[in-house]
Amino acid sequence: MRPDGVLPVELPDVVREALLAPLVDQSCHGVRRDDLTRARFETLLSETGVPAPPGTTHFDTPAGAAVRRWCAPVLDLPPHVPPAVYLARRAELGAAEVNRRLLGAAGIATFLFDDSAAPGGPEVLPPDEMGRTGGAGTVAVARIERAEEEVAASAVSAVAYVSALAQNLAARAARAVALKSVSAHRAGPHPDEARPSRGTVIAAAARRLARPGERLTDPVLLRHLLWTAVDVAREYGRPLQFHTGPTGSGTGFVVAVQPMGVPVVLLRCHPFHRRAAHLASTLPHVYVDVGAAPARGATGSATVMAELLESVPFHRQVFGSGGHGVAETCHLGALHYRRGLAGALAARLADGEWSVADAARVAQMIGSGNARRLYRL
Amino acid sequence: MRPDGVLPVELPDVVREALLAPLVDQSCHGVRRDDLTRARFETLLSETGVPAPPGTTHFDTPAGAAVRRWCAPVLDLPPHVPPAVYLARRAELGAAEVNRRLLGAAGIATFLFDDSAAPGGPEVLPPDEMGRTGGAGTVAVARIERAEEEVAASAVSAVAYVSALAQNLAARAARAVALKSVSAHRAGPHPDEARPSRGTVIAAAARRLARPGERLTDPVLLRHLLWTAVDVAREYGRPLQFHTGPTGSGTGFVVAVQPMGVPVVLLRCHPFHRRAAHLASTLPHVYVDVGAAPARGATGSATVMAELLESVPFHRQVFGSGGHGVAETCHLGALHYRRGLAGALAARLADGEWSVADAARVAQMIGSGNARRLYRL
Amino acid sequence: MRPDGVLPVELPDVVREALLAPLVDQSCHGVRRDDLTRARFETLLSETGVPAPPGTTHFDTPAGAAVRRWCAPVLDLPPHVPPAVYLARRAELGAAEVNRRLLGAAGIATFLFDDSAAPGGPEVLPPDEMGRTGGAGTVAVARIERAEEEVAASAVSAVAYVSALAQNLAARAARAVALKSVSAHRAGPHPDEARPSRGTVIAAAARRLARPGERLTDPVLLRHLLWTAVDVAREYGRPLQFHTGPTGSGTGFVVAVQPMGVPVVLLRCHPFHRRAAHLASTLPHVYVDVGAAPARGATGSATVMAELLESVPFHRQVFGSGGHGVAETCHLGALHYRRGLAGALAARLADGEWSVADAARVAQMIGSGNARRLYRL
Repeated sequence: MRPDGVLPVELPDVVREALLAPLVDQSCHGVRRDDLTRARFETLLSETGVPAPPGTTHFDTPAGAAVRRWCAPVLDLPPHVPPAVYLARRAELGAAEVNRRLLGAAGIATFLFDDSAAPGGPEVLPPDEMGRTGGAGTVAVARIERAEEEVAASAVSAVAYVSALAQNLAARAARAVALKSVSAHRAGPHPDEARPSRGTVIAAAARRLARPGERLTDPVLLRHLLWTAVDVAREYGRPLQFHTGPTGSGTGFVVAVQPMGVPVVLLRCHPFHRRAAHLASTLPHVYVDVGAAPARGATGSATVMAELLESVPFHRQVFGSGGHGVAETCHLGALHYRRGLAGALAARLADGEWSVADAARVAQMIGSGNARRLYRL
Repeated sequence: MRPDGVLPVELPDVVREALLAPLVDQSCHGVRRDDLTRARFETLLSETGVPAPPGTTHFDTPAGAAVRRWCAPVLDLPPHVPPAVYLARRAELGAAEVNRRLLGAAGIATFLFDDSAAPGGPEVLPPDEMGRTGGAGTVAVARIERAEEEVAASAVSAVAYVSALAQNLAARAARAVALKSVSAHRAGPHPDEARPSRGTVIAAAARRLARPGERLTDPVLLRHLLWTAVDVAREYGRPLQFHTGPTGSGTGFVVAVQPMGVPVVLLRCHPFHRRAAHLASTLPHVYVDVGAAPARGATGSATVMAELLESVPFHRQVFGSGGHGVAETCHLGALHYRRGLAGALAARLADGEWSVADAARVAQMIGSGNARRLYRL
Repeated sequence: MRPDGVLPVELPDVVREALLAPLVDQSCHGVRRDDLTRARFETLLSETGVPAPPGTTHFDTPAGAAVRRWCAPVLDLPPHVPPAVYLARRAELGAAEVNRRLLGAAGIATFLFDDSAAPGGPEVLPPDEMGRTGGAGTVAVARIERAEEEVAASAVSAVAYVSALAQNLAARAARAVALKSVSAHRAGPHPDEARPSRGTVIAAAARRLARPGERLTDPVLLRHLLWTAVDVAREYGRPLQFHTGPTGSGTGFVVAVQPMGVPVVLLRCHPFHRRAAHLASTLPHVYVDVGAAPARGATGSATVMAELLESVPFHRQVFGSGGHGVAETCHLGALHYRRGLAGALAARLADGEWSVADAARVAQMIGSGNARRLYRL
């Protein structure tokens, strides 16, 4: 299925084709395959993860407005229908048909699937099924915190924890196209970027094994996990996907990784994408996920894309929908990326800053080419 | 008085009406009611709080340009008159008439008035008179640092300091629609967000009482003040208005407050409004004051409003003029908010992102509806 | 040579003339005068300072696209020629002619030249020759880290280090129009802004003299260097140019300098220019270099200039090309500044926010007037 009709501006054919070509989605999670109540749908749509406060609705958000505008027509409804009408139609079609339509119209060739989402219970589409539903292939991204949780639950000693962690990460890396971390920001605003010594790691692991079910917060073990992942990523030739926090925590670690030759991909940068862009402009191993930013931007997505195109080398921008929870998020991630980039390219063509061939080539690079090179797809 | 003629774009009638409807100004201070010298006027207009360096004038600022453009016509002058002409006309009309015109044309229904401004001396309009001058009602916001100063000046012991602080805050909360703090950024870039123990508070209070006239800078007492205010706010059902510093200090505290069920309103966010927007998008108890940002933005105010509409749920944005010092600031706060939101809404309508009803409803929510719900007006 | 034909919009003659008038470039470095290989040219063009990763080229960057678009016509080529064609023509003309064309067409009256660039080897144009090549005058800016390196290499004792540093800085200040620091961000994310005691400085200097060839990283000596420079700057009436890091390090120092009466000019602010703008809006001694920001922005440069005009007083914005390495960077710095400011002024005129005279005056102030006042040219 081709996402025709979503571009907001007239563009030369070659640019239009490059924008509408199938994408590599370098960051997505499983979406629900069961029918959802309004409360559940709203919570999944919201980044707060909780129901809307009394007197309010999560439909009164940028994401809610975008669902009504852009997803409604995919379900044969006019744009801007009230939330209740949208949800009634969603229930009428059933989740399977809704997912098939929304994921299919997203125009994605390959999903890079966060493997931590797999055990989301029977309500979440597993990777293969999500790929089939969207008419796409699926490859795995290994979340390193899952490796640590498994090891913390099973290691019989602190020494065994250390060796098992490296083995578990290696086994995951062998099956995945990238490693991914979501915990660096937990280590506090200015985590020491250096590798912790073996002695401090062993001591911290002993404390950790006494409370294996808890979320990992020990800064020594978080750093050990990150550096072990860097070693494994280097050995297997995998990039490391990485969340930075709103205060820029993790930045020192990104700098420290440079000599290791492991590419780092910064995820979910909006609204701090200018900081991510700065890192990418000064550090040759840093890539920026440009998808989640315009996904939120909607009408502002051309501005966000322009702010990225101003600073980040074009060969180090990669699309990711950031899809999660409901298929609408994946659909909107792809749609706003295409609309935002279309607007930014049109402005560059109108100003004479770029040639038509430049615009088409950059659209191809960000949409799929860079990801194919980086992840060896 | 209706602020007609200020919208920069054609809009459907229902959107136009929503934008021009009377506002709830959730953050303002008293303005001067005496006639002002040029030096005094310039200093009040500037955020630096000092006279302009030699060879320069504070009229060569965004605020100065806006006064000449937008306030001059309210005083029957053509736009862009030289500063000397503006100030001569201001003196000719007299401060009372100038305030009546500028505040009246701001189109504000209710001022939320920072009570710390009340004792600004005979030159500053007290709340009731400011309301009457602007044709508006007035309700109080209690600045918690004022409570602390009173208690520090009168408490006879450290133990009495602790109990008197809670009592003083409670008395203020009973008379106000919100509590407000301006001191969190003083606690340093990364204040520990936890409640300090009673023992450390008593010890710090003893030191404080030895130097009651000094500005409060002790991190333990600042945190104690904040947490006591949270307790009082919870008991009285009041939101807490809150300044965050340019480095994001205070962010940890905002996160820590979430379980208490006390709404937090982030003030004066520009040019860090994207950080505030991020907090609001991820934390359901966080509101963003959207007024002061476009007030400075002038021509850029539509961009600033767009950056807020991209991230912040629409039910958690509230207008505040940030008015202070001279009535021009209040007038321009309302004017640029309306112009900026008008521009952002027009872009969304032109792109087909929002329906006309959406645009009108969001304008009503941010301009007054959200504040009425939040502050129970 | 006049940079005609570079403005993207129609503007009243007086505004156009103000934009095209010769600039004072308050921040540039020497550029290469030898013929360059493609690898060397790409590395000099990139901010990473290293060759592009395999499979990529530094021409796929904002700077690379701008060279092909804007520098190619200066070398008699059509816009958007492939990199190989551009570099072949560059070699054909020879570096001397290329530099003469690109620097001349930049339309710069005076270069403020970072004196640390002087000993860049025979391949780098020295100040006087760069001025002649560009048809401009040249004055010096003294980099304080160079003074420290000289003193560390020659002082015979820690006590002598302290006195020699002050003398060396004074001698440089006498010959220069400003002092400049690039090291504050090395002192870590939150350098203590206070002056270190003489005792701690002597102790640190003794350690430093034991390893004089190393890069200065000692926080005590970095702070001592900065404060000594402030003293010298005050005595000689020189401003202090200053790099802030991406995490805002150095901000505390900027605040602490205020009572000294020494103007501070923030360099290379993009993409953190809104933080710089905030400092300048609240501190009367802070200036912002607005050149390097639009230089990177290209099509986005009008947005960047608008974000600066929203917050920074107009009398405290100064143009600097940030030129370094190759003449293309200097040419593009001036070109994108003029294009960006033209776009931002056109928007303000179209909205009726500013008068034509306002727009022309602000263009003159930022382009040269403020720098002439600040540096007493």
